[in-house]
Amino acid sequence: MESAIDTHLQCPRTLSRRAGEDYRPPFPVWVARAGEDVTAVVMGYFGVQYRGEEHREEAFAGLRHLVDDFGRPDGPGAWDTTHHRDAAGYDNLIAVGYWRDPETYGRWLARPEIAAWWDADERRTGDLGFFREIVSPRADQFETLYPFTDRLPGVGGVMDGVSDEIEEHAYWGSMRDRIPLSQTDRMRPEGGLSATGDPALGGRVVVRGHDNIALIRSGQDWSEADPEEHALYETEVEPALREAMDFLRDRGQRLGCYSNRYVRYVDLDGRPLDKTYAISHWRSLDKLEQWAETHPSHLRVFVAFVSLARRFPTLRLYHEVSVFDASEQYYEYVNCHPATGLLRDAEAPHEVPPGVTPAS
Amino acid sequence: MESAIDTHLQCPRTLSRRAGEDYRPPFPVWVARAGEDVTAVVMGYFGVQYRGEEHREEAFAGLRHLVDDFGRPDGPGAWDTTHHRDAAGYDNLIAVGYWRDPETYGRWLARPEIAAWWDADERRTGDLGFFREIVSPRADQFETLYPFTDRLPGVGGVMDGVSDEIEEHAYWGSMRDRIPLSQTDRMRPEGGLSATGDPALGGRVVVRGHDNIALIRSGQDWSEADPEEHALYETEVEPALREAMDFLRDRGQRLGCYSNRYVRYVDLDGRPLDKTYAISHWRSLDKLEQWAETHPSHLRVFVAFVSLARRFPTLRLYHEVSVFDASEQYYEYVNCHPATGLLRDAEAPHEVPPGVTPAS
Repeated sequence: MESAIDTHLQCPRTLSRRAGEDYRPPFPVWVARAGEDVTAVVMGYFGVQYRGEEHREEAFAGLRHLVDDFGRPDGPGAWDTTHHRDAAGYDNLIAVGYWRDPETYGRWLARPEIAAWWDADERRTGDLGFFREIVSPRADQFETLYPFTDRLPGVGGVMDGVSDEIEEHAYWGSMRDRIPLSQTDRMRPEGGLSATGDPALGGRVVVRGHDNIALIRSGQDWSEADPEEHALYETEVEPALREAMDFLRDRGQRLGCYSNRYVRYVDLDGRPLDKTYAISHWRSLDKLEQWAETHPSHLRVFVAFVSLARRFPTLRLYHEVSVFDASEQYYEYVNCHPATGLLRDAEAPHEVPPGVTPAS
Repeated sequence: MESAIDTHLQCPRTLSRRAGEDYRPPFPVWVARAGEDVTAVVMGYFGVQYRGEEHREEAFAGLRHLVDDFGRPDGPGAWDTTHHRDAAGYDNLIAVGYWRDPETYGRWLARPEIAAWWDADERRTGDLGFFREIVSPRADQFETLYPFTDRLPGVGGVMDGVSDEIEEHAYWGSMRDRIPLSQTDRMRPEGGLSATGDPALGGRVVVRGHDNIALIRSGQDWSEADPEEHALYETEVEPALREAMDFLRDRGQRLGCYSNRYVRYVDLDGRPLDKTYAISHWRSLDKLEQWAETHPSHLRVFVAFVSLARRFPTLRLYHEVSVFDASEQYYEYVNCHPATGLLRDAEAPHEVPPGVTPAS
């Protein structure tokens, strides 16, 4: 048993770990490990947005283009593709890629064929929308959690291996305790989201993040379930999970949730797989903790998962959580509807308070 | 808004508060306050045990005797009386008294008529059982929590008033953060429960506690509910609460719960009132936290209370939580069945490990 915080990321604490020295968790879980050479990773969510079945084929062609680009030199070391329908009724396809270092990502991004494709006017004028949400947490700014040690999804796919069983889990606050930065930093948010264009006018809009936005990818994989487990998952767990996800998507704003997408793996022809995850952006880790720990919508899911775990050994649940400096985030929306992703809560420039004229 | 930890009990921290400096709770609650002259309080649970309706009258006469004793000089400043049936099928009546200082309690306890009554052989030989569970936390070893500011039940009844709205609540870990000792001490348990007699043989047994046993009194008062609220409470909340209480009583041992009693206020003639509480002893605050935060049985109650709160303004929920040094506890059982209170988990003296003879 060892700390979730890798040895080379440990430092003298100015903030206590919530779990005492003698805490022992009731069941084993593991975290992904990487060598000291990994100082930051890149998580790049590349999306295609469409509305109406008549645009489905074109959208999937767009998704395949994104994945083809992943195959170019310096592309991501791991990726997957998903579909979800958002609150505005649009369908969205996302290809997420993970890079083991920002330099490789930078070279990939700068490739003329990739840069030119994103910059092309056609992105802005066609029937599809496109977006890129790129974040690059330092090694001390993210954590992972897996109750298994093989075939790690998400960022685990570009790490070097797994830890021993870790100490910091099975209590509220353990997410924070697994992030190395929490040893010395409360990771408080500063500032707000601002947009460089006008989200309401569409076109090409870049959203500027602020310090300590938190992102969780929280996954469910029941693809190895036997028929009985499959039925159990779909009747006893998935409805509670969907309700929580819909709640966050539609009413999470006042709780500090900037965006919540409950996505399902699809193959490149659009066939759904039995794997889902949430991609959830929060104003801060605090806000994510508050919702997860106290909101009935999440506690119902939590109880469903806890109650089910023993009866359902093939269910693979996992998550990864990151926080970012403002400079480690890049959100770009091209021809997307104004409530897409972090656009919804971004303040447009030159916004004038009610009752104040621009001249005053 | 202010800290739950009163100014004169604040000290330089060696352990962080879980809530950050900028945390603001979503709704107001208050804690009881007392002057600096209060350095410790006494919580004395005095019980009468019986089995079978034919002993009910005698038992209530015993309860009235205990309450009459409360009325003697140096008696408690606040008290109440309850009934519960325990896991062994025995009925138990408890008169709990609260003293504002151990010296007054000490004088009361030493009164010849009180000391003689408890020491009398009749206590040991009749149809009734009797017990005393007396704990005396220092001012830095307990906390309270009330979403109201009038008529404080429990230990609040011997305090001097209430705080301003407090910061440390509505998050897991806030119970610990409200206990002043948590600023510098994790309050880890040391040692086990030991008995001076043989619980299985009955008679008079004293159980010796260990450092940092935790006691929670967690109360529910729906006596001011209108008929609709009354029905809501009894159909949507009470069944979940009862299930959690039964779980702890019957299966809490392996989770570190030494004793759990879900008691109902009764008047001195045995008429039940619409007020209940749990009296729950734990090996440590850690163990209590673990159950409350993660066990489905408690989370279901928590969700029921949270979901109900807005629709049920007259429901008064509150609690008080204490930890104790070994020397601040006294548990005595006279003619009680061997699973009464902390007797159940107490190790009898000279217990011989299996396969080892006393001579070896």
